[in-house]
Amino acid sequence: MRTVSTIQELRTALKNIRPQKIGFVPTMGYLHEGHISLVKKARETADFVVMSIFVNPLQFGPNEDLDSYPRDLERDSQLAVEAGVDLLFFPSVEEMYPTGSRTIVSVHEITDALCGASRPGHFDGVATVVLKLFNIVSPDYAFFGMKDAQQVAVIMQMVRDLNMQVEVIPCPIVREADGLALSSRNVYLSEEARTQALVLSRALAEAQQLLGKGERNVAALRQAMETVIGTSPLAEIDYIELRSYPDLQLTDELAGTCLIALAVRFGTTRLIDNILIEVAKEEAACSVR
Amino acid sequence: MRTVSTIQELRTALKNIRPQKIGFVPTMGYLHEGHISLVKKARETADFVVMSIFVNPLQFGPNEDLDSYPRDLERDSQLAVEAGVDLLFFPSVEEMYPTGSRTIVSVHEITDALCGASRPGHFDGVATVVLKLFNIVSPDYAFFGMKDAQQVAVIMQMVRDLNMQVEVIPCPIVREADGLALSSRNVYLSEEARTQALVLSRALAEAQQLLGKGERNVAALRQAMETVIGTSPLAEIDYIELRSYPDLQLTDELAGTCLIALAVRFGTTRLIDNILIEVAKEEAACSVR
Repeated sequence: MRTVSTIQELRTALKNIRPQKIGFVPTMGYLHEGHISLVKKARETADFVVMSIFVNPLQFGPNEDLDSYPRDLERDSQLAVEAGVDLLFFPSVEEMYPTGSRTIVSVHEITDALCGASRPGHFDGVATVVLKLFNIVSPDYAFFGMKDAQQVAVIMQMVRDLNMQVEVIPCPIVREADGLALSSRNVYLSEEARTQALVLSRALAEAQQLLGKGERNVAALRQAMETVIGTSPLAEIDYIELRSYPDLQLTDELAGTCLIALAVRFGTTRLIDNILIEVAKEEAACSVR
Repeated sequence: MRTVSTIQELRTALKNIRPQKIGFVPTMGYLHEGHISLVKKARETADFVVMSIFVNPLQFGPNEDLDSYPRDLERDSQLAVEAGVDLLFFPSVEEMYPTGSRTIVSVHEITDALCGASRPGHFDGVATVVLKLFNIVSPDYAFFGMKDAQQVAVIMQMVRDLNMQVEVIPCPIVREADGLALSSRNVYLSEEARTQALVLSRALAEAQQLLGKGERNVAALRQAMETVIGTSPLAEIDYIELRSYPDLQLTDELAGTCLIALAVRFGTTRLIDNILIEVAKEEAACSVR
């Protein structure tokens, strides 16, 4: 695996790869099994795998964890090699934003709710940096984890709206054995919070079970999830949302492809989790996608 | 010359052109010698010339001339053939915006003044459609007329900020023999307004002459230009601006590369014109770029 930190080096390194297919895994580093699963999928799909590690200041709000976001390039490099990354792109902030960021890409409507509502400007930062990275790498395929389901919806919408020639491939959430969705931010959790953080996946399982029993009412499902979260004294709900996916429209009764998503704070650490579920009309069975 | 109206046809047609270089001339049609000069430059620079004709709704304000904007594909096609266009892309609004336009590209700061101030949202529409067209055509070079000097600055900034791999080539303003800058909108002018519209180029010439005599004070130069415009009873000044270029910063005393730009209304028709000038410090000579 080669590591480059400038756009020029990256472009030179990729010059002779085509017509082989390039798979791209953009990350903020501090890699875990979720990232590794994206690399595996990229290895299956493409001939050459590029990973980027860039903690993008543009997607962090003024009171968020930009400075404390965990970073460990040495460990990440080793994990990337083992996973089968061919080229690691590790640019500095100055390399990515040499003159600040006058140009901003905004995906409207679907960023109004969920994490978009809790983190104003977050998805502008995500869309802008992902578009830049796509222009730098020119990948055939790009791989994103469904843990950030709204991010996946935003990027797919952007790619479609802006006629970008990359196929976005969403990959399933990877969880710990006990159900906690993997996240670089899990490292912030105290032992106590780590244990209580299981309420996220349990609340989703509860909603799924109720759906299986025929419950379609959004208010009832949300109430049941709130009750599960309420069993954790440390947990503070940011949002619980049940919406159509990927257009993220509100509805009273779930039907079709739906996202059940939640964000919960444990002190200063904010965790998110979700399930994407195919909700059958009436009382037929539902299937997790 | 071939004409295509879908993105798929265009991409298929361009598939086997590379590694030859593609030059791209995006237009809103109703072609005049200004557009033709862009095609000539594209022919000199690239191996294959693509022109687009698309009256982009996204860059027109609610009270602007979207519906009345002059259109004549037959005449345009003939002029494009004669000028040496290889492929004409003439998409419908539905082809370009099949699901509306949720994703918007905004270039901040340099769009606050001049036409950006007079036409809110205009440059968001320009940046978004140009980015889409660049993604559709994937040109090596793109050619824009300097009559829209702020547009050129916006597009160059966007290309740089978003790491797009296209070289933007600004081309000089083309004028009628009497000095009027060519514009598809000149067709709106009554005979009387057409005669009086010469005040735009005359005001620019006046400013240039004063600069040649050593005047550097922006207020004095603007005053002299206002006086020239004032000789036309039909003319109504939208703006007269003297700024650094391409960053469009305000200054009291001109120095370095400067844009002198103005927008003037004749009834409902709004005309723009400008000169880009290299202003020497002190009283040395100035040169028009």
